[in-house]
Amino acid sequence: MNKNSSNIMALAPHTSNKRETVCIFGTGDFGRALGHKMIQSGYPVVYGSRSTQISNLIPKDAEVLSHAEAAQKAAIIIIAIQRQHYNFLTPLAEVLHGKVLVDISNNLKLNQYPESNAEYLAQLLPGTKVVKAFNTVSAWALQSGTLDASRQVFVCGDDVEAKQMVMNIVRALGLTPLDKGSLLAAQEIENYPLQLFPMWKFPIFLSLGLTTFFFFYCLALDIIYTYIYEHRNFSFFIAITIPNRICPVIALILLALVYLPGVLAAIIQLYRGTKYRRFPDWLDKWMLCRKQLGLIALAFASLHVLYTLVSPLRAFVSWRTGKGIISQALNNKTEPLNNTNAWLSDSYLALGILGYFLFVLLGITSLPSVSNNVNWREFRFVQSKLGYLALILCTAHTLVYGGKWFLSPSAYKWYLPNIYMLSLVVPCVVLVVKFVLIFPCVDKPLTQIRQGWERNPKYSE
Amino acid sequence: MNKNSSNIMALAPHTSNKRETVCIFGTGDFGRALGHKMIQSGYPVVYGSRSTQISNLIPKDAEVLSHAEAAQKAAIIIIAIQRQHYNFLTPLAEVLHGKVLVDISNNLKLNQYPESNAEYLAQLLPGTKVVKAFNTVSAWALQSGTLDASRQVFVCGDDVEAKQMVMNIVRALGLTPLDKGSLLAAQEIENYPLQLFPMWKFPIFLSLGLTTFFFFYCLALDIIYTYIYEHRNFSFFIAITIPNRICPVIALILLALVYLPGVLAAIIQLYRGTKYRRFPDWLDKWMLCRKQLGLIALAFASLHVLYTLVSPLRAFVSWRTGKGIISQALNNKTEPLNNTNAWLSDSYLALGILGYFLFVLLGITSLPSVSNNVNWREFRFVQSKLGYLALILCTAHTLVYGGKWFLSPSAYKWYLPNIYMLSLVVPCVVLVVKFVLIFPCVDKPLTQIRQGWERNPKYSE
Amino acid sequence: MNKNSSNIMALAPHTSNKRETVCIFGTGDFGRALGHKMIQSGYPVVYGSRSTQISNLIPKDAEVLSHAEAAQKAAIIIIAIQRQHYNFLTPLAEVLHGKVLVDISNNLKLNQYPESNAEYLAQLLPGTKVVKAFNTVSAWALQSGTLDASRQVFVCGDDVEAKQMVMNIVRALGLTPLDKGSLLAAQEIENYPLQLFPMWKFPIFLSLGLTTFFFFYCLALDIIYTYIYEHRNFSFFIAITIPNRICPVIALILLALVYLPGVLAAIIQLYRGTKYRRFPDWLDKWMLCRKQLGLIALAFASLHVLYTLVSPLRAFVSWRTGKGIISQALNNKTEPLNNTNAWLSDSYLALGILGYFLFVLLGITSLPSVSNNVNWREFRFVQSKLGYLALILCTAHTLVYGGKWFLSPSAYKWYLPNIYMLSLVVPCVVLVVKFVLIFPCVDKPLTQIRQGWERNPKYSE
Repeated sequence: MNKNSSNIMALAPHTSNKRETVCIFGTGDFGRALGHKMIQSGYPVVYGSRSTQISNLIPKDAEVLSHAEAAQKAAIIIIAIQRQHYNFLTPLAEVLHGKVLVDISNNLKLNQYPESNAEYLAQLLPGTKVVKAFNTVSAWALQSGTLDASRQVFVCGDDVEAKQMVMNIVRALGLTPLDKGSLLAAQEIENYPLQLFPMWKFPIFLSLGLTTFFFFYCLALDIIYTYIYEHRNFSFFIAITIPNRICPVIALILLALVYLPGVLAAIIQLYRGTKYRRFPDWLDKWMLCRKQLGLIALAFASLHVLYTLVSPLRAFVSWRTGKGIISQALNNKTEPLNNTNAWLSDSYLALGILGYFLFVLLGITSLPSVSNNVNWREFRFVQSKLGYLALILCTAHTLVYGGKWFLSPSAYKWYLPNIYMLSLVVPCVVLVVKFVLIFPCVDKPLTQIRQGWERNPKYSE
Repeated sequence: MNKNSSNIMALAPHTSNKRETVCIFGTGDFGRALGHKMIQSGYPVVYGSRSTQISNLIPKDAEVLSHAEAAQKAAIIIIAIQRQHYNFLTPLAEVLHGKVLVDISNNLKLNQYPESNAEYLAQLLPGTKVVKAFNTVSAWALQSGTLDASRQVFVCGDDVEAKQMVMNIVRALGLTPLDKGSLLAAQEIENYPLQLFPMWKFPIFLSLGLTTFFFFYCLALDIIYTYIYEHRNFSFFIAITIPNRICPVIALILLALVYLPGVLAAIIQLYRGTKYRRFPDWLDKWMLCRKQLGLIALAFASLHVLYTLVSPLRAFVSWRTGKGIISQALNNKTEPLNNTNAWLSDSYLALGILGYFLFVLLGITSLPSVSNNVNWREFRFVQSKLGYLALILCTAHTLVYGGKWFLSPSAYKWYLPNIYMLSLVVPCVVLVVKFVLIFPCVDKPLTQIRQGWERNPKYSE
Repeated sequence: MNKNSSNIMALAPHTSNKRETVCIFGTGDFGRALGHKMIQSGYPVVYGSRSTQISNLIPKDAEVLSHAEAAQKAAIIIIAIQRQHYNFLTPLAEVLHGKVLVDISNNLKLNQYPESNAEYLAQLLPGTKVVKAFNTVSAWALQSGTLDASRQVFVCGDDVEAKQMVMNIVRALGLTPLDKGSLLAAQEIENYPLQLFPMWKFPIFLSLGLTTFFFFYCLALDIIYTYIYEHRNFSFFIAITIPNRICPVIALILLALVYLPGVLAAIIQLYRGTKYRRFPDWLDKWMLCRKQLGLIALAFASLHVLYTLVSPLRAFVSWRTGKGIISQALNNKTEPLNNTNAWLSDSYLALGILGYFLFVLLGITSLPSVSNNVNWREFRFVQSKLGYLALILCTAHTLVYGGKWFLSPSAYKWYLPNIYMLSLVVPCVVLVVKFVLIFPCVDKPLTQIRQGWERNPKYSE
């Protein structure tokens, strides 16, 4: 690194240090942006281009030469051209021999080609040291300096020294290199910028589906039913009342769905008598998106909290409260405090507060920087013990809230149950099965199985 | 790294790259899980085992050989056996000479042995390069791929190259290696997965103790006293009213306890006239858990906010409000707005909101990823300046809230003060002493002492 | 690293490992603190000092020698003296030749000298390997062990091996080294600890200015006007009512200012017909502090939420509610529910809740640990799509809230508009221009320009 193999020296502002010349093949957008940034950071830059005349777009301090000439000036060559033109590099194989080629290309689709662009380049030019880098950085962000999402530059390559050289450049540009290992990782690195929250897709679609179903369910029972049978127009329930019924229901169901796969896995392991057979694919996938399910549940729970807390500010609620007080005043009597009601109302609110509090704690613990600072035992303690406690509290909150209406026929409009009853099915199943699983007679064999014991060793994979 | 010293090559799916063979001693749970993962990542794996017949549990693509044969095939040997069996490795000393041994073992208790397992291994086999790694990863997480808490793999060892080789494997498995330096760090790394929030223990026990004390105090004054002397049953106060009295009290006391040790340290330094003598142990420990104390205080403050905000939804509160309005209506008069009351109520709420807002800001700043992005000056500004401002605001909030009752005898049931009066003791002491400490005549010598000046240089350590 | 070049060995507690001797020039505060910590971590430490008699302050296990003698004992020399005394090192050039010098100095002002201290040191002693490190760590924090803000140690230097040696020491002290590249980075590293939220200055001053302006505006309209013309004293509005008017207004304006520069940039690019000319400086700076503007907007929005949610607890609000109910009761009539009012009140609250919810989501995404885990496409999706949605919801929230008063003359006290009308100007402009920009006839040329197309290639830079 300290020996400068090129004969062109850069004198960066305020410094007396020398940086190695970097060659960039291709004068497209990203090539120019990268060149600009490198010159700013004190690197001499030389462009390799078919035509040396488009120079007014190219950074002023950069040289533009033919590909072969440019390649000779530098030890590192950045290949800022598209994969479909890589084959034009084969005639240059001799010049490029032993050089570090930096593949910065991206594809338009996930897994567009059988092998990654970087591996393809390495196959085309076997004498070179190919390093994959910079593909997650956008040209726009590089030029404007707003690099919030992309300070990390994934780097991979088979030659450790070549990788080190590239990582030094990455650092010099103010970015953070992240060594992802050998060139095998290139496929993953190339797929990375094309992803749009892949782990979130299923949880989001599931919650959207549930939201739609429960919205129409509530619309029918709370607005249409009231309009038909009581001739009252409560259409404004769409804004707050109905969302505030849907949110807690979905939050509770999603939270229970976070813990259901763990319970199912335990049952499967107990039934099979071994842990060495793979779970069904759907269960594996479900387990992998538990964090996302939990965070979406937290989002719905937070909306529920906000919707609930604003209720005293609603015109409808003030009107209803006023009506109740006025009717008492006009009848000249004050109702005494109903102690049972006070207990129910307070304990339902307290359970909700504590459940939500634990839920937020779980959410904070799943922040990457926090979960990186706890060990496995601590993470399990929070996510499992506190998680179950949150589920118990939230289920109890729903039970206490709606308990008194379970047996009242007026709660069953059109013979359909209220949605908070529907919301209790999954959490109650999870809690009951979990309760059975912690009995010693069930827990002991399960623990043995998880430690590697097998009921029928022959049948294992 | 690029030269493959073994004669067995792995052809990982979709790749043409070669990875070095890795040998694993021990076919237990972790050995198998690690082997599986390595084969997935393109490493040829060979197991060293006493019996070569338990092969149906071992990953299909792995070879199983005797220990000596297996060790010869690889440069890196993962020792997936327990410490008490390490001595069986001594006969293999010759075969293992010069090899990289990866110690992945964990103990059952903190500091179980005088030296760490890795150092013990290095003593047993002096010709080998021992690297400690992987002990913080669980076999279960490795197999299932849910690695939220354990992406970080602590690595330590005396041989830099050996460590580098192991770190490359760690990266290839999709984990993040963290170099902790020489083998000296092995003890710490082995203790790490056994910890369960060690820094949180004292703050949690302290707050639980305070909670219990204040709970019974409130129970006596608010429920039992009322029941005995006024024959009214307010048992439902247990759900919300009493928690909402305890939470702010504990939050304020804990917040004050965050700033008390700093004030005590300043007094000790002023008294001693030097900063070069160590503080008493209890003060050192107290200072180290200030962050945890503050975060628990924030948790109690957040509960207080939630309990307060739901109060308009409580049946008891609606009943009390209604009763007040009805009695006015029945008396045919409307009370005019009491301007003093409006001022007190609004300023008490505003002080609480601003105090809580700053408190949350402090909490966000203590998130690892945020505090890593601020420099020392910025961190001190937030945690000290804004922290004291939060303490002042929260103390003022409590004073304004309860101020009018200080002199009223009815506030002293059974001659005991209300708990918000108790909660003011520590914060007021801290604020008064801090106020004294910022006077120039006190601040100047203190600053000098902190810059290294000593009153009696002879008496210093 | 494994060969110990000095003849003094340290036997750190519980270990049998040897660490290289480290020499520290200078027995000042930081030199002593660092020495203490190094001895604790098992390093033999030797001090170089003019006088060898101040030894009672120096860690007991350290040796104190003359500069030349001390330097000979170690390969690494930490220069714990101030820049203005660096020239005394020149006579030692021969002894120091080939040694690793660690520059730990800081300046008192930003860019105090033309070149960084480390580069100055490297120029003074050309035969040495200068590494910049440790300057971001405070002596106080090093001694007390409370290293929350400064676990990161920025390291830079031209010699890779020397840097590696220093980084190993950093790790051994329990700190995290961060390689910032060559010695060119020293200036930046030396400026780092002197900064106090440099990116936050403009957004904070802007919001303070707006707060002051709107505070006096509201004071005039809500308190002074009412006092003069209606002879009512609403001075307590200062505590909650007025802050709760100012906060949402500033939050909305700042949120719009986050998206305004993007819109302006698009207009400038469309007008110029090229993206290759730099934006004006003020626009560049504005774009770089968008994140800070957004977070301050979020802080104001959060205060608005808290102020709003406590309103049912305010004495003034209870009094007003009670008065309304009593007057109805005394008139013996119950007002029916006004459906339009219920719709307006509910939809205004619902819009606010959803807008705030998205706003918090944006805030969480801008946490460093979260934004490091999303790719550029995901970051843009959240910050641009969800951000505009939040802006639309918050603008709609304000419009629905105040819509009915726009045409009412009583809303214009002293012919001045209410402040929520003022707050709508910027967001409406941004949304209207953005709406125009997404029309195909405007969007198409803009996309082309952003992909590198130019209307008049000649005129480009």
